[in-house]
Amino acid sequence: MPELRHDPIQRRWVIIAKERGARPLQFEGELRFPRNSSCPFCEGMEGTTPLEILALGPPGRQPNTPGWELRVVPNKYPALQVEGNADRRGVGYYDVMNGIGAHEVLIETPRHMQHMAEMSPEQMARIFFAYQARLVDLKRDPRFKYVIIFKNYGADAGATIAHPHTQIIATPVTPRTVSNELTSAREHFRLKERCLFCDILTQEMESGARLAALTDHFAAICPYASRFPYELMILPRVHSFDFAGERSEIVQDLSKIMHIVLKRLRGALGDPPFNFIFHTAPNTGHSLRRSNYWDTIQYDWHWHVEILPRMTQPAGFEWGTGLHINPVAPEVAADHLRKVQVA
Amino acid sequence: MPELRHDPIQRRWVIIAKERGARPLQFEGELRFPRNSSCPFCEGMEGTTPLEILALGPPGRQPNTPGWELRVVPNKYPALQVEGNADRRGVGYYDVMNGIGAHEVLIETPRHMQHMAEMSPEQMARIFFAYQARLVDLKRDPRFKYVIIFKNYGADAGATIAHPHTQIIATPVTPRTVSNELTSAREHFRLKERCLFCDILTQEMESGARLAALTDHFAAICPYASRFPYELMILPRVHSFDFAGERSEIVQDLSKIMHIVLKRLRGALGDPPFNFIFHTAPNTGHSLRRSNYWDTIQYDWHWHVEILPRMTQPAGFEWGTGLHINPVAPEVAADHLRKVQVA
Repeated sequence: MPELRHDPIQRRWVIIAKERGARPLQFEGELRFPRNSSCPFCEGMEGTTPLEILALGPPGRQPNTPGWELRVVPNKYPALQVEGNADRRGVGYYDVMNGIGAHEVLIETPRHMQHMAEMSPEQMARIFFAYQARLVDLKRDPRFKYVIIFKNYGADAGATIAHPHTQIIATPVTPRTVSNELTSAREHFRLKERCLFCDILTQEMESGARLAALTDHFAAICPYASRFPYELMILPRVHSFDFAGERSEIVQDLSKIMHIVLKRLRGALGDPPFNFIFHTAPNTGHSLRRSNYWDTIQYDWHWHVEILPRMTQPAGFEWGTGLHINPVAPEVAADHLRKVQVA
Repeated sequence: MPELRHDPIQRRWVIIAKERGARPLQFEGELRFPRNSSCPFCEGMEGTTPLEILALGPPGRQPNTPGWELRVVPNKYPALQVEGNADRRGVGYYDVMNGIGAHEVLIETPRHMQHMAEMSPEQMARIFFAYQARLVDLKRDPRFKYVIIFKNYGADAGATIAHPHTQIIATPVTPRTVSNELTSAREHFRLKERCLFCDILTQEMESGARLAALTDHFAAICPYASRFPYELMILPRVHSFDFAGERSEIVQDLSKIMHIVLKRLRGALGDPPFNFIFHTAPNTGHSLRRSNYWDTIQYDWHWHVEILPRMTQPAGFEWGTGLHINPVAPEVAADHLRKVQVA
């Protein structure tokens, strides 16, 4: 019998339909890469990107020249633009504002094809330190209400360039998925004086059925109401609301669990396309304007990373209803992932 | 400058980023079809599907034999199952219910490859009459809160079988996108004593900029805050809340505008993968239990069809934020579509 499961964080129903897993479906992730004739993110191509915002490299390296380990540059085709003001206004029944924001690309490595699972935890930690640096910088801009960090791996996960990179987008609105999570967390805190994410984590640690990996400071779980097969959520084990403020030891441990989890996904599924998304704390520079949101944010928000393997194609049903059909129960996915040995 | 536009129906922001349309992106829809070794929906294969629920054919035809024009059968791999009760219950912090519902497949034609745009309006009207018949029947079951009718065309739109078909799913919960729309429409009606959809339609008819097609009884518009390039919404021009109750003349006119719109999409974009979704009235059999929802439904709900061409791949940003980036302004899409001559 399929089940409808409710996610208390996003407050959405998901259909867990194990029976549909029996369909004649290609399930081992078949990875397609975007075809680009030449790669603007490779070493030696620094002249083809906008000027770099941040780079890691040897002392004495000149900006926008080879020799770097990691670069952050503005997106050449930005979804949002840095200059100007939001200027919210009405257009008849509609509302509109200028598309201000920031859209940056973090080139993770000079190597054109290096899966994040093949990176050492140290290399990955450098990438995460760069995320922190960009978050701190972008959160200073009072026009931006949120900064989202995400990665698209594989054409079927929306990547248009194969070279390993992360995108960072600052938006002039708090995105709906984040405000949904904020609302649930806030209401739970009002009722219980406890963090919703901490409560869920306690329950998951006791059960163990959906636990996919564990390190000193992090737990990776397959959420009870996973939308996608093998979906994962990585949470700090001790309450923490702000990724940008995490100390070095914690960031290094994050790279350790990310390394384990990405290796396990590859071991279990081949080489699936995936997205990951950092749900960090919303920008607190707005405390005066939106005080009801931010007064208890350090107690009720719990930052986390979502990893979404993209082996199923959301179709008319998902777009038309907001419901998802997931053919793999998260308990089955977690069990499968735990069994993958990571050297 | 990109714009953030707000959709007053779904209450969501969309980024209209015309600048990104300049990216080196494959834009003419490249259609991939699922590869099936043999087709269970073709004439002569009636034995491979579950027993038919409804069929159109010549008088005297035996059920589950060739000779049909259209068949409705249960989905062989249903997302939801007909037997049982929802049995809502808690599991720690989570909620769960049994996955009861109905999942049917409407095989639109015996011909394996026939695009809906190639069907005559008469043939299409027969399909829509069959939708009505299934809606009326499924809405009798008080366990079902909503019936969604949708079509996936092309592998990139989530189709797993190439043969033309529509899916019909009855769910034990009101889906979130529908309840969002119901809430917006209800609150607008309380404030104005007018239908939100009618108000939007009036504004769109006056402007004309986003109008893609018009018939006696229907208008097709590219919504102001379209998530997808060339997204369309078809609305009855005179207020009407219930597709299932529409009389024959109206259904025939719906098939006329659908024919025009699908032809125009093909003419403008090649042969793009797409989804369409019928947002019909919610099931009114629940009037006693949920009376606040249903008391004014005939005044504040306005049924409609959404058509979503699927030329862009939602990625980490969309899944992580709920925001969409659309590189084609709906005014540009509507203008392009209007210029396509339909014989």
